[in-house]
Amino acid sequence: MADKPTVTIIGLGSMGQALASAYLEAGHRTTVWNRTPAKADDLVARGATRAATVSDAVWASDLVVLCVLDYAAVDELLAPNADVLKDRVVVNLTNGRPDQARRTGEWATAQGAEYLDGGIMAIPSMIGTPEAFILYSGSRTAFERYEAALRVLAEPKFVGTDAGLAALNDLALLSGMYGTLAGARHATALVGPERAAEFTTSLLIPWLQAMANILAPSSAEREAGDREAGDLPSEESPLDMQAAGLANIIEASRSAGVGVDLLTHLLTPMRDIIAAGEGDVLTDLVEVIGKEIRS
Amino acid sequence: MADKPTVTIIGLGSMGQALASAYLEAGHRTTVWNRTPAKADDLVARGATRAATVSDAVWASDLVVLCVLDYAAVDELLAPNADVLKDRVVVNLTNGRPDQARRTGEWATAQGAEYLDGGIMAIPSMIGTPEAFILYSGSRTAFERYEAALRVLAEPKFVGTDAGLAALNDLALLSGMYGTLAGARHATALVGPERAAEFTTSLLIPWLQAMANILAPSSAEREAGDREAGDLPSEESPLDMQAAGLANIIEASRSAGVGVDLLTHLLTPMRDIIAAGEGDVLTDLVEVIGKEIRS
Repeated sequence: MADKPTVTIIGLGSMGQALASAYLEAGHRTTVWNRTPAKADDLVARGATRAATVSDAVWASDLVVLCVLDYAAVDELLAPNADVLKDRVVVNLTNGRPDQARRTGEWATAQGAEYLDGGIMAIPSMIGTPEAFILYSGSRTAFERYEAALRVLAEPKFVGTDAGLAALNDLALLSGMYGTLAGARHATALVGPERAAEFTTSLLIPWLQAMANILAPSSAEREAGDREAGDLPSEESPLDMQAAGLANIIEASRSAGVGVDLLTHLLTPMRDIIAAGEGDVLTDLVEVIGKEIRS
Repeated sequence: MADKPTVTIIGLGSMGQALASAYLEAGHRTTVWNRTPAKADDLVARGATRAATVSDAVWASDLVVLCVLDYAAVDELLAPNADVLKDRVVVNLTNGRPDQARRTGEWATAQGAEYLDGGIMAIPSMIGTPEAFILYSGSRTAFERYEAALRVLAEPKFVGTDAGLAALNDLALLSGMYGTLAGARHATALVGPERAAEFTTSLLIPWLQAMANILAPSSAEREAGDREAGDLPSEESPLDMQAAGLANIIEASRSAGVGVDLLTHLLTPMRDIIAAGEGDVLTDLVEVIGKEIRS
């Protein structure tokens, strides 16, 4: 593509502003629309075109990026403008659930648009930096055609043609982050406020980064069913040591005045494995927690 | 020190064997003792000296490393041998709680020994590799004098002269790890078994490693009280977006058949912040979870 695709940003909250800024800086002809028009003032001063209506905004560009509060807002904006959606590429970066993304994708496709749903894994200040990435699902054709333009915002990662997959992966990553935050809070509460800062910087962060790696190949393989039931590795970290370690966490938490509720749903199945004398806690945790949270 | 210190390892479970092996390979004169003497056979074949009694084992070396099941076992081994502890350096790598470490340290010091308590942050196969580290607390003099010898086992990290601090930091790091594992399991349950392996490798692990970094300076500073109450950053990720995101995780989990219990103790305070309209969920989580688990 010789010319850079033209881009419209609909929704100028802090994230929408960051997206529009990134396109302006990258030299794309950028059109913006927001319910409260004044939110576009800074962007217009920097070269963006203010669309008077959503219809004008959709009509103006090759790529139509939506970033609004929720899918109800998406519906409200797009439904009256079905007639201008034909041959547009709609990139919906609004936070939502997989079912909402699928429904919106089906509707937009029925109007003749190509649809990409996206999950932004970044805060606004990270947009345009190498740390940010955005998950996309839906039209693979649209993704491949506009990949370079999408890369202006963040590293683009296509996760599948089912339009719901970006939202599903986005929510899954957030869940994972919350688990890490919860564990980190338990840990810093245990060491106490005076030592928390030093502990976090010099021990906890490198430890959690190393730990993330243990999730990798073996757990993934197990998940895929490569390991048979009863085929339990355990020589490395014997059960009695794990059991002693668990009891120590609980008692040390109590004597530090730190509740153990946060870890209860994790500790219970671990104690069950130990009581049953089955396998290695650390490695089998993977399967057991999976079963418990599905039940 | 011209000569390498002599080392005794008491307790030859899989971890004790790994410790003794590391010293043999590094060329330290190594004495070993285990309740079941046959567990020393391989090590003796490789050059270790088998002590007939605990007393002989303690007497034999500059450094006396204990790695047994629990502190009850430590007491049972050391109490009858108080007379040979004078001027020994006792390095107790047995899993335990801070109070147990302190008590054992006080007792050993009263017998004229120098005491280091240690928490091994590794599984046996990691001993002697750059990934392993061991937390130490207690006698700083002993730590500094024998730091090079301790480095044979793993990267040594001294966390304070209170003998209980190694155990406290050890248990805190394990708690942090369990939070990460719990979050990861929720995440992979959400994406489902067919996608879990690919999701874990290509998205979850890099994401969690990046997330660990957000725990760093700002949370540490807040913890240290550098931020005043009411001084709440929130422009980056507005509350209404966070609230929508939370509701999405819960609903998507339910429709995927994944329970939300695992995250309940985390989600509840987050919803409370949102309901109260206070601050930014992601950044304030730090303080709120800390308060909740202390209450």
